[in-house]
Amino acid sequence: MNKDFIAENLTAENDALVFGGANVSALAQKYGTPLYLMDEDRIRARCKEYLTALQAEFGKSCKILYASKACSFKQIYRIIKEEGLGADVVSCGEIYTCKAAGFDLGNAFFHSNNKTDEDIAYAIEAGIGYFVIDGEEELLAISRIAKEKGVTQKVLLRITPGIDPHTYAAVATGKVDSKFGCPIETGKAEAVIKLALSTPSVTLVGLHCHVGSQVFEPDVYLQTVQIMTAFMAQMYQKYAYVTEILDLGGGFGVRYTASDPALKIAENVRIVARAVKEECAALGLSLPTLCLEPGRSIVADSGITVYTVGAVKKIEGYKNYVSVDGGMTDNPRFALYGSSYTVLPVNNLSAPRDMVCSVVGRCCESGDILQENVPLPADVKRGDKICVLTTGAYNYSMASNYNRLPRPPVVMVKGGTDYPAVKRETLQDLAKNDL
Amino acid sequence: MNKDFIAENLTAENDALVFGGANVSALAQKYGTPLYLMDEDRIRARCKEYLTALQAEFGKSCKILYASKACSFKQIYRIIKEEGLGADVVSCGEIYTCKAAGFDLGNAFFHSNNKTDEDIAYAIEAGIGYFVIDGEEELLAISRIAKEKGVTQKVLLRITPGIDPHTYAAVATGKVDSKFGCPIETGKAEAVIKLALSTPSVTLVGLHCHVGSQVFEPDVYLQTVQIMTAFMAQMYQKYAYVTEILDLGGGFGVRYTASDPALKIAENVRIVARAVKEECAALGLSLPTLCLEPGRSIVADSGITVYTVGAVKKIEGYKNYVSVDGGMTDNPRFALYGSSYTVLPVNNLSAPRDMVCSVVGRCCESGDILQENVPLPADVKRGDKICVLTTGAYNYSMASNYNRLPRPPVVMVKGGTDYPAVKRETLQDLAKNDL
Repeated sequence: MNKDFIAENLTAENDALVFGGANVSALAQKYGTPLYLMDEDRIRARCKEYLTALQAEFGKSCKILYASKACSFKQIYRIIKEEGLGADVVSCGEIYTCKAAGFDLGNAFFHSNNKTDEDIAYAIEAGIGYFVIDGEEELLAISRIAKEKGVTQKVLLRITPGIDPHTYAAVATGKVDSKFGCPIETGKAEAVIKLALSTPSVTLVGLHCHVGSQVFEPDVYLQTVQIMTAFMAQMYQKYAYVTEILDLGGGFGVRYTASDPALKIAENVRIVARAVKEECAALGLSLPTLCLEPGRSIVADSGITVYTVGAVKKIEGYKNYVSVDGGMTDNPRFALYGSSYTVLPVNNLSAPRDMVCSVVGRCCESGDILQENVPLPADVKRGDKICVLTTGAYNYSMASNYNRLPRPPVVMVKGGTDYPAVKRETLQDLAKNDL
Repeated sequence: MNKDFIAENLTAENDALVFGGANVSALAQKYGTPLYLMDEDRIRARCKEYLTALQAEFGKSCKILYASKACSFKQIYRIIKEEGLGADVVSCGEIYTCKAAGFDLGNAFFHSNNKTDEDIAYAIEAGIGYFVIDGEEELLAISRIAKEKGVTQKVLLRITPGIDPHTYAAVATGKVDSKFGCPIETGKAEAVIKLALSTPSVTLVGLHCHVGSQVFEPDVYLQTVQIMTAFMAQMYQKYAYVTEILDLGGGFGVRYTASDPALKIAENVRIVARAVKEECAALGLSLPTLCLEPGRSIVADSGITVYTVGAVKKIEGYKNYVSVDGGMTDNPRFALYGSSYTVLPVNNLSAPRDMVCSVVGRCCESGDILQENVPLPADVKRGDKICVLTTGAYNYSMASNYNRLPRPPVVMVKGGTDYPAVKRETLQDLAKNDL
């Protein structure tokens, strides 16, 4: 097998790339490029893998919440609903989309470091199950608005456990120095819990934390479990506060290139879940409902993006550039973080990839690069199709209309068949709000 | 005057910020936040400053083309049309918007390092004046499509003169190692000109180059003029090719903070225009029509963004965070480039700004930062309004719906009155293409 076939749903047939059982070149022909493809079967398999592993340890006292900021559109919520997952949502836009897809919002957790009063009112009216509150301003705002609406709102508090997951700064969110949550270290977490326990119209049902992204080893979660359970024990001793729900967030890594390790979802979930059971037993705590919030690891390697080459520039003595018909507008992650991706031709897979090039986008911007140092066949030319792997997370969801470029459609592949999940934007769409 | 009032249209009245004659707090109340404000009078003044300075040297043989990727929506094209500017467009989306605004596309130049066959056909049908071609694939595609449509298409060739403008890598586009254009140094520029001269259905009317962004001193343009005119002379000697249009691109810098120099548009335009006249005279060349393509310097400091504070987090021993209701979704430039911006309170302008903080957005992403080390009053709290200056360029145009957040509206201010130019996106808009 081609070593760059980093996900099991990638194969070759007659020297052409097959994704989730479907011929990629034929789909590019049918739907045009740029084109996001997502593999429904693989998304479902990931959901099952998480839920089965967690239920094996926690029975019914657990939830897998899909972190939908990774990729949010109606069909995704229908799939995760059918798979028995809850949703982690971060805005009224995601709540609206959930609702429009028929997703039960009672099974949704509303995150964000800054929810406006309008957000809070909208979410309560929509019947959101849980707010994951970030601090006291939000706690008091929810209390006030819930009271006005005559409801008692369930909330969790986001804790910053003070762990640096040793990933890059932009995705290191569990450290004390973070815009998210309340640190244990400074006494803030305890102060907000104390406040929450005496605040009307809210019920503090549990604690949440999230230590980072692209974490491959369970160690950082084991440390997190120790810190969180010790804190739970402390809150029980001091305030007789019982943490009903412990939400450990997400962050499991995915394979962007052949050098990234393969993720062992079931194994890692088991290790983390058992650690929670062991620590709670050791501390004499009743076992909480355990939540995990995978996003990237559910959808990232269930997606690829297909492009058409427009220009090939071989600048003697310098570099080779292959320009495609998308770029930072549909995948801003190289521009933002210098993220690594695997790029493959869609046809002639066995041709030697003997030209090293920069694969760049079509935006009028030097930083519009999809990937550097990509090996492609030296005869790649205008009209050829190429694809970028592992684009199911943080691509469609982060896409922009920079240069007034329409966003690509999302087409789902399922056992070799295909159906559109998000339509391609039209030129009319781009100017629809212009007066 | 407050040293941070870096643009002349910022003043204070009763300790509250006034932008283009309008009270910012009142506009935030009227339209909600986040809110883009743009000053129509200032945009018009910038257009006039450019055009007057260039016409003083070149009479009617010149064009100022607004680089609309900086900020593209219908009303902008109406304003630049009334001011007598042409447009630099980079996509069918921008061409569509031009057309919808009643802008004469005969006065538009179509840029981009990668135009698809569909783009080329659309632009020709729309009556685009000029293609700025990037290489031979595009030249041949335009020739083929123009022939099919029975037209002869005017084109310019983008040249990479090989100048590093000493700005940061992401905006250094005139170097030989660039995804844009054809280098003189490697012989590619000459080869494509030679090809263009014998290619049917296209007329090569001139040459284009663009050396970078955020350039404050004219030196780099003077070097560019020398290189470009010398090349024009060479092409004349070798092929009797007369460059009718010389388009020197854009790149004039703007003030993001008080430490950036004030831009002297008229002075710089005069220096560059005179250099073109002198070099052409010295080389015995007939004077071309001279084009300049300012984008950022037309609109950047004609715009500000207003936000509402949602949470203030003072993490003892670490950092202070002020979270607002927008962020990298409406202004991704700090996340992309670490760009500097000036942040000001909207009210109580004379209060001492004695707290240094990170102003962060509401996205569930650690990298969602608007600016670091911002001085704000220590008593800033949920509900307060703050604003970021110089956001008229590359903010609305680069905005995304990450976290399914709706994009803010653009409201124009004109002599103290206001009117909406782009409506706020709705939740329905966000899911309009979801199936």
